[in-house]
Amino acid sequence: MRVCITGVDGYLGWTLAQYLAARGHEVAGCDLFLRRRCVEEIGSQSATPIRSMKERLAAFQENFGKELVFEKGDLRDYDFVLQFLKFFQPEAVVHLGEMSSAPYSMIDVHHCVFTQTNNIVGTLNILYAMKEVCPQAHLVKLGTMGEYGTPNIDIPEGFFTIEYRGRSDTLPFPRQAGSWYHQTKVHDSHNIIFACKIWGLRSTDIMQGVVFGSRIDETGDDERLLTRFDFDQCFGTVINRFCAQAVIGQPLSPFGAGQQMRGFLPLRDSMQCLTLAINNPPKEGEYRTFNQFDKVYSVTQLAQKVKRAAAEFGLNVNISNIENPRKEMEKHYYNPDRRHLLDLGYKPNYHMVEELRVMFRDLIRYRNRIEEKKETLIPDIRWDGTRRKSRLLSEVSQ
Amino acid sequence: MRVCITGVDGYLGWTLAQYLAARGHEVAGCDLFLRRRCVEEIGSQSATPIRSMKERLAAFQENFGKELVFEKGDLRDYDFVLQFLKFFQPEAVVHLGEMSSAPYSMIDVHHCVFTQTNNIVGTLNILYAMKEVCPQAHLVKLGTMGEYGTPNIDIPEGFFTIEYRGRSDTLPFPRQAGSWYHQTKVHDSHNIIFACKIWGLRSTDIMQGVVFGSRIDETGDDERLLTRFDFDQCFGTVINRFCAQAVIGQPLSPFGAGQQMRGFLPLRDSMQCLTLAINNPPKEGEYRTFNQFDKVYSVTQLAQKVKRAAAEFGLNVNISNIENPRKEMEKHYYNPDRRHLLDLGYKPNYHMVEELRVMFRDLIRYRNRIEEKKETLIPDIRWDGTRRKSRLLSEVSQ
Repeated sequence: MRVCITGVDGYLGWTLAQYLAARGHEVAGCDLFLRRRCVEEIGSQSATPIRSMKERLAAFQENFGKELVFEKGDLRDYDFVLQFLKFFQPEAVVHLGEMSSAPYSMIDVHHCVFTQTNNIVGTLNILYAMKEVCPQAHLVKLGTMGEYGTPNIDIPEGFFTIEYRGRSDTLPFPRQAGSWYHQTKVHDSHNIIFACKIWGLRSTDIMQGVVFGSRIDETGDDERLLTRFDFDQCFGTVINRFCAQAVIGQPLSPFGAGQQMRGFLPLRDSMQCLTLAINNPPKEGEYRTFNQFDKVYSVTQLAQKVKRAAAEFGLNVNISNIENPRKEMEKHYYNPDRRHLLDLGYKPNYHMVEELRVMFRDLIRYRNRIEEKKETLIPDIRWDGTRRKSRLLSEVSQ
Repeated sequence: MRVCITGVDGYLGWTLAQYLAARGHEVAGCDLFLRRRCVEEIGSQSATPIRSMKERLAAFQENFGKELVFEKGDLRDYDFVLQFLKFFQPEAVVHLGEMSSAPYSMIDVHHCVFTQTNNIVGTLNILYAMKEVCPQAHLVKLGTMGEYGTPNIDIPEGFFTIEYRGRSDTLPFPRQAGSWYHQTKVHDSHNIIFACKIWGLRSTDIMQGVVFGSRIDETGDDERLLTRFDFDQCFGTVINRFCAQAVIGQPLSPFGAGQQMRGFLPLRDSMQCLTLAINNPPKEGEYRTFNQFDKVYSVTQLAQKVKRAAAEFGLNVNISNIENPRKEMEKHYYNPDRRHLLDLGYKPNYHMVEELRVMFRDLIRYRNRIEEKKETLIPDIRWDGTRRKSRLLSEVSQ
């Protein structure tokens, strides 16, 4: 199948290109390298030493025996999106090309507006260009479990059938996102539902849990194929951040009470799930939602798992909760469904502890790169709009 | 009270400034005159001959004995919004400064992106500037009943308490908006809910029905105080469009089956309701929703009411349904609540027939201005992305 990946230079995008190429798909991708710039802007770097796109493309060709068709461009530029789709004529478009950081979007009004316009306009341009060029193609859109927030009821997959005052309807499940970034995914979902309805486009909207991991099997020994691994307060997801902390001997730092529950899945499983979505498109006009995660854990449970796995590598790790820079519930009900992907054949492949071992092997090699930027591991971007490093909870209470 | 109105040059904004000034409030406003430009862009004009802002401000001073503080500026420019609020120090901000046309937003990708970015960025800038300058002030935000779409259950005011799989929660009511423009109001609502939650701002989000009318009592005989009256396919609301058609002898043109149900209210009642919201602010951190309409009618019922009222003025009017350029349900359940404003003391003041008489008296004076642009009364902007004039349904079925 011809699959186009927006944001192909990113954590998921660069991995997915390899995963799909190894399975016989033709892959094209585009990127503006915004992620590289934003990570630099906040004073951090990828733990893995990622290569220039030129080197990446050469390595891709050598390892997979086929070209990754690449164009640098801005999804906010409709003509770029249109020409790119016209040239490649994709059968599936996997849209990963969005700003993906909650804290980055919360820095100030400018980062908020940038994140919202970048994500919303990119998605609108893709919808219009698909309608124009390839209305039968399948849009696989990366959303987030964070769209739902933490309601006090079960979380279905996108829609639910309810009774209200004696009548019944099937409606979109209410969204209560917890950052300007998460809000963009909510806005995108609404816009995509509408596009499918009026134009007959088909789309899978992926409510993905928190992904962790440093590689997939296809990465192999070629360092040029490594995907990025962010560990800073903005772009590092929680398990990746904990592992980076463990490697440099910094205490793991759950926010607040640390009882926040989230769905998680390994990078390899994310690839498996995205590919299942690609290989099983919805029908014309259908918009469907997948809740994409393996297991639900509290942040404290994760910290303990990371601590245990780190011990196998001789790393002695402490856990020290810090002030929560976010405004979120720190203890809450959480029971999301995840039936749709299992129905398509999703088989959770990796136990977290195995995945953590792989990550530690990679990260220990690059510990100096984490050490260099370790200041970025402790958050100072606060949801109240101020900037102040989170202190240890044990110090605050003294 | 010091009330700042964004979009003060518009249909509601210019009217509200007068309504508030007559009731002792200090009023400031800003506008970029986008509405004037967009109406010109689509080849139409206001039926009422509206004056330049300079003339409007002079008339305002003469009639109300006080200044309307005015600045021209772009809500997408954060510095403008910040400086304007800093200067005026409002106690309430009534945000009416958004692109408000569903068909205009559906013209093409550029009009879609323009409408979404204009509305979303303007609201985000206002939220940030209020947090910075006047966090105790009250944001009165104009949304639309169209945010809800037409679910098969009752529509509460913003939130509902539901049981689902044996548990219960109070959640935002699901939104199913029917145009790119209506989607912006949904996005705004989500963003405002979040801002109230994290920063303690207070806001009333008004889900307003379709407004009709040409004046309020305060307009009096000074033609310079007249507000705009749009009748074109983009900016004319349905009753205003029907009245304009009646005045020039064009058949009234319900879309499709004409059984679409909507909530409506007269311009005077809209002013009363907005003022009730302003005078009764929510508490710190509270986000509340008002469904703001008087009665629910089908489009065909409205056409018949307009036809009867027109007959009093010797206007012989036909009703000829035309192809529906939109993608919407033409027959559906519709039962929205409207309790919150009644609880605050809202008294529906005008019967539709009285309001229609006032409108006909105004519009007959300006029939030539409608005649000049009568081509814009019949829609050609279609939800499928094409441009084609809607034909009479009687011709299509032949």
